[in-house]
Amino acid sequence: MIKQVVIGIVCGAVMLAVGILIGHFGTGKRGTAAPSWVKDVARDVDESLVEKFLSEVDNTQIENNLRELTKVPHMATTSGDEETVKLMLKRWQDPESGLDKAWREEYWVYLSFPDPEKPNKVTVVSPSDTVLHTVREKEKPYTPDQVDPEVVQPYAAYSPAGHAKGKLVYANQGKPSDYSELNRTMDLSGTIAITKYGGVGRADKAINGAPYGVAGVLVYTDPLDMNDGLMSDINETYPYSWYLPPSGVERGSFKSQFGDMLTPYLAAKEETYRIPPSDIKGLPPIPIQPIGYEDAYKLICELDGDPAPPSWQGGFNCTYNYGGPGFKSTSSFNNSEVELDIYNREEVKPSSNVMGFIRGSVEPDRYVIYGNHRDSWVHGAIDPSSGTSVMLEITRVLGKMVKQGTWRPRRSIIFGSWGAEEFGLIGSTEYTEQYFTALSERSVAYINVDIAVFANATLGASGMPSVQNIIFKAAKQVNAPGRDVSVYENWLHYTNKTSPTHGLIPRMGYLTGAGSDYAPFSHYLGITSMDISYTYDKSKTNARIYPAYHTAYDTFDYASKYIDPGFVSHQAVARTAGNVLIRLADSLVLPLNCTDYADSLEEYLKTAVNLYEEKLKAVNISMEPLKHAVTSFRAAVLALEKVIQSSDLANEMPLKVRWINDQLMLLDRAFLDPLAFPDKYAYRHVIWASSSAGKSTFPGLADAFANAESSEQASDWDKVHYHLSVLSQAILRAASTLTDDMQM
Amino acid sequence: MIKQVVIGIVCGAVMLAVGILIGHFGTGKRGTAAPSWVKDVARDVDESLVEKFLSEVDNTQIENNLRELTKVPHMATTSGDEETVKLMLKRWQDPESGLDKAWREEYWVYLSFPDPEKPNKVTVVSPSDTVLHTVREKEKPYTPDQVDPEVVQPYAAYSPAGHAKGKLVYANQGKPSDYSELNRTMDLSGTIAITKYGGVGRADKAINGAPYGVAGVLVYTDPLDMNDGLMSDINETYPYSWYLPPSGVERGSFKSQFGDMLTPYLAAKEETYRIPPSDIKGLPPIPIQPIGYEDAYKLICELDGDPAPPSWQGGFNCTYNYGGPGFKSTSSFNNSEVELDIYNREEVKPSSNVMGFIRGSVEPDRYVIYGNHRDSWVHGAIDPSSGTSVMLEITRVLGKMVKQGTWRPRRSIIFGSWGAEEFGLIGSTEYTEQYFTALSERSVAYINVDIAVFANATLGASGMPSVQNIIFKAAKQVNAPGRDVSVYENWLHYTNKTSPTHGLIPRMGYLTGAGSDYAPFSHYLGITSMDISYTYDKSKTNARIYPAYHTAYDTFDYASKYIDPGFVSHQAVARTAGNVLIRLADSLVLPLNCTDYADSLEEYLKTAVNLYEEKLKAVNISMEPLKHAVTSFRAAVLALEKVIQSSDLANEMPLKVRWINDQLMLLDRAFLDPLAFPDKYAYRHVIWASSSAGKSTFPGLADAFANAESSEQASDWDKVHYHLSVLSQAILRAASTLTDDMQM
Repeated sequence: MIKQVVIGIVCGAVMLAVGILIGHFGTGKRGTAAPSWVKDVARDVDESLVEKFLSEVDNTQIENNLRELTKVPHMATTSGDEETVKLMLKRWQDPESGLDKAWREEYWVYLSFPDPEKPNKVTVVSPSDTVLHTVREKEKPYTPDQVDPEVVQPYAAYSPAGHAKGKLVYANQGKPSDYSELNRTMDLSGTIAITKYGGVGRADKAINGAPYGVAGVLVYTDPLDMNDGLMSDINETYPYSWYLPPSGVERGSFKSQFGDMLTPYLAAKEETYRIPPSDIKGLPPIPIQPIGYEDAYKLICELDGDPAPPSWQGGFNCTYNYGGPGFKSTSSFNNSEVELDIYNREEVKPSSNVMGFIRGSVEPDRYVIYGNHRDSWVHGAIDPSSGTSVMLEITRVLGKMVKQGTWRPRRSIIFGSWGAEEFGLIGSTEYTEQYFTALSERSVAYINVDIAVFANATLGASGMPSVQNIIFKAAKQVNAPGRDVSVYENWLHYTNKTSPTHGLIPRMGYLTGAGSDYAPFSHYLGITSMDISYTYDKSKTNARIYPAYHTAYDTFDYASKYIDPGFVSHQAVARTAGNVLIRLADSLVLPLNCTDYADSLEEYLKTAVNLYEEKLKAVNISMEPLKHAVTSFRAAVLALEKVIQSSDLANEMPLKVRWINDQLMLLDRAFLDPLAFPDKYAYRHVIWASSSAGKSTFPGLADAFANAESSEQASDWDKVHYHLSVLSQAILRAASTLTDDMQM
Repeated sequence: MIKQVVIGIVCGAVMLAVGILIGHFGTGKRGTAAPSWVKDVARDVDESLVEKFLSEVDNTQIENNLRELTKVPHMATTSGDEETVKLMLKRWQDPESGLDKAWREEYWVYLSFPDPEKPNKVTVVSPSDTVLHTVREKEKPYTPDQVDPEVVQPYAAYSPAGHAKGKLVYANQGKPSDYSELNRTMDLSGTIAITKYGGVGRADKAINGAPYGVAGVLVYTDPLDMNDGLMSDINETYPYSWYLPPSGVERGSFKSQFGDMLTPYLAAKEETYRIPPSDIKGLPPIPIQPIGYEDAYKLICELDGDPAPPSWQGGFNCTYNYGGPGFKSTSSFNNSEVELDIYNREEVKPSSNVMGFIRGSVEPDRYVIYGNHRDSWVHGAIDPSSGTSVMLEITRVLGKMVKQGTWRPRRSIIFGSWGAEEFGLIGSTEYTEQYFTALSERSVAYINVDIAVFANATLGASGMPSVQNIIFKAAKQVNAPGRDVSVYENWLHYTNKTSPTHGLIPRMGYLTGAGSDYAPFSHYLGITSMDISYTYDKSKTNARIYPAYHTAYDTFDYASKYIDPGFVSHQAVARTAGNVLIRLADSLVLPLNCTDYADSLEEYLKTAVNLYEEKLKAVNISMEPLKHAVTSFRAAVLALEKVIQSSDLANEMPLKVRWINDQLMLLDRAFLDPLAFPDKYAYRHVIWASSSAGKSTFPGLADAFANAESSEQASDWDKVHYHLSVLSQAILRAASTLTDDMQM
């Protein structure tokens, strides 16, 4: 009996086992085993991984990165620049913490440098040719950094070489209105104009003066605009504070368009056709040179003539006069002229981007791009190395996870360390020109972190409205340095607005200019972009930017003492930007919010209607097509949101989430029109292009309206009408991309 | 014992059943049941469905379609046109055999019509103002079709209204060289030039003459160019054959660019901004009128002056003289002048596209587009109704399968019945302007079947090289009408070439012009396009096109008697084009072959090197970058083909086949450069743009070279160099889109 029971049990067990095997492998018809990729394609953000990332981002690593990056000056194409290229490649090719791969992309670009053998000179020369004063050639040293022989003399890149000599006048900021104000009472021909930074672009200070016969231009940083009025290096300015010392000079690129100027709309490869340099538009037609306020003080306070208006006055303890032209009769400079001897040389030189790549596991052909430039004017601790230090820390932490096999993003990630940004966003622009098709088709978003920390008060961010949501989400998960709240709450405290959809939220900016490498991505390619940094408490300083900007004082010493002691704000930026990056790369449904886009368009429309509708009616131009377009856009957004919300996208056919994501990813592309701004190089995004009208609304409409309003010519009103059609059709086109069949 | 055995068996059976259940439902970890969509995403072409489609395409249905479409003339925006709009909508909205949906897209477009109250007149007037001859106002009737009051008088659309009177000269085809030849020996100012069709675009015949002071132009079809010399309507021409009767006149659009001319690069909606008509470029500056050869004969054979060169002679039984200017002294027209009284009027009128849509089941956001225009000049039996009849038969068969639930394509299909094509591809161009973003991003291919049957000898096809493969495959599955071979084998017999990859294959053409609605898709959007038809035995006729083209004789009677009796060639085209459509819509991997693209680029390169390299070296322009680009393209193609061949795409992650398909789909987009051809409206594809140089190679290079070679100016050689950079970078860009990470 026992034997039989045992046999029975064994038999039963065998039958059970056979049954299990049959059930598992033999019943294909009703439920084939799911292929292993079924889970992969549904993969979403792993929150525990985000936490791991946040906890591993290390401020000491960032500090060390910055120390290494700022050992020597690394102006574009110099040996210091090449050292940073090698550093990036070494880090990104590191077998323990590097990326899948990293490589160099080289472009031959048109740059401008002073002549080290013949430095630029600015002098005050008496009628008998005696040199009464010579402007300081280089900045005064306070640390060994300033005596490095590789510190480039302050100069205006792309200023023509040449000699200009004439009586001095004070032209405020060098705006068109400033020169026309001076021109009311004096003949400017043959004069030298001294101007302050601010108000208009650098090159414009020369471009605006030349038509009046101005022979040369000086530009300086007024202590009122940058130093909250302080100007003594005995106890007030660096090395005693973050303020700019008297001899500090902001260098810069003096040109009006971005990218390599000899190869418009083409990648500047060695063999690429180059236009003749004489065909370049938007360069200073007359010599221009930046100087320190120490020298500017000596010149301005000796000027003759009527006192300039109150709005022209600055931080010096004297009245800013227009100039006789020339100096006061009581001055030791009486009857003297100011002379500029500029020896800048243009050169075509090879400049490198360093590219890094992590291949996506599920959607390798979708790119999240994260970038910053690598070149500086001098040591560039803040601009750009704060951002590069942050990028290197993000890639170290992510690279380690990739190398350890604990993580691989759903989508591919491209890191770009751009070259020659300081000369006009050249490396990033050439990259977008070389790869514009694949980048247009595949890029989810571009994240720019250039100056990671302007100051240590609060996060600041700008971007397309659709990224607001994801930046907020990321910022909520990061602690604000030195405070008991999140980066998000801290931000809300410093700057906020009320949104119809969300209530009180931090106020983000829009990327309407070309201040950093986001410009070719957002304006030229129409890729959804953002720019992230830590920044000021505006209630505590009026500085136009951090005071050592583009000077020989932007050093590790300066950054670690006065911008971000302990590098905790750098850490907060790395955590926030890295979190945004991970979420864009890993989310099943792209976290790009088109409802927020619709909000912004409606806000712009409201402003446009308030400002323009009445006047446009009077010239028989209707704004109804624009209203209709914005309404259609909202309707398309609502319909898409409904599809997303009513779907179970993790379990439905994976091509469904892909087409929804494609609609979200490509939305900004639909706002491009290569003909919308014929006079603005590479600006094609009809919503976010730059504008000179200064209105918070559609840029092309605002500029065309301002132009027509001032000329009152029928042909200029026609241009307003034309741009309204361009704009309305772009918005409708964008709405149609949010549908499957384009039937609106 | 038996009892125990029974219990044992029952137990065993129970255990087995339990085991099966556990195995089936309880072993989730190792093999969850596959979701039902796993099969759907791997769906490929169903060959039995293709066979069903081929067998259901019915020649009688096509014949009936053509009869219905050609009941009345249906020139764009006329009541006859509106009837065809309603017919298309009715068919496509039919509950038994219609599409998922169909709708109308309306544009307000700039057209040109003769004045029905004041017909255009061409007369021979004696010095005493006696009218000695009046050119026939309308074509001579042979069937009731020609007497329909809706038959539009022959005219040159967009010829300016006006009166021109002068001595007649014979200017051959009105090419620049023709007028300059005449100008060698006579003063052309104030003359009327009579020209033949052919050689240059219609409008050019007036544009080229105007600078010489020519006051008006006549144009006619020479019997040698169209009728193989035959010209008697007693027994030789229609209604006795397919040849053009003596009074037949080719109407046409006399303009140089396609699309609505008042709204360049914008959709011509009612509210869209319109440029002033005076700003339109490329229109005839002087009156021009087409006439029949019956009248041309009377004029040309009376001309005085020297005999024109042999190449200018035509089919008339007289010597074609240059003209005195004017007529022979022995002629009854002695001393007479020819007068043109043109009353054409331009109007902005609403024109409709009819759109049809079948939603894709797996990839609804991928479009295969199939289109043809709907408007004709008169009854338009061949142009365009042969194509429309074929399209309606394809949609009937497919629509029935969709309505019956037996088929739904993997990708979406868009059908377009375009309006106002005869006035310059207006409906299709406005559609691409309105939706260019979504169309660029989502379109797999565009299939154009306009004139479906020119003649009944063989299939003919043109397109991007990547579609050759799929057209061949489709053609192999269709029987050639009246022959015992496939359409493919029949085609191979008529026209063939030897390919390095495939051996002997039928010779396909490239779409380098703007002859039909493929142009905005291929040239402006860079969508892979093709044009399919049945066509001539070139050994049997020299006709420039089928002789009734754009005349009042292009009727159902003509088509059914002389073009395709029995409609079997129509049927073969419907089967071939429909098969291509189904395969593009249903294939798992898109059947677009980039190896064939590389072959074509290498062929173009070889020709370019042969023609240009030596001369370019002499002016210091290197072709190496272009060679490098073509080599890189080939390498990228090989790499992609290797990926495709080494993958098991039906069983791998469905996003893999999607990204491979996206690379294939978007390849042509990478060749676009909006700045490559600044003087050619909407031409942006650097490989297939139109060219005037007449060389089988890269069009922009060929034209720039021809220009520089004739001017020998350094600035023109610079343009060659510039275009070489544009071209090389576009090819490299295309190569980079065939990789995942853009690293070449």
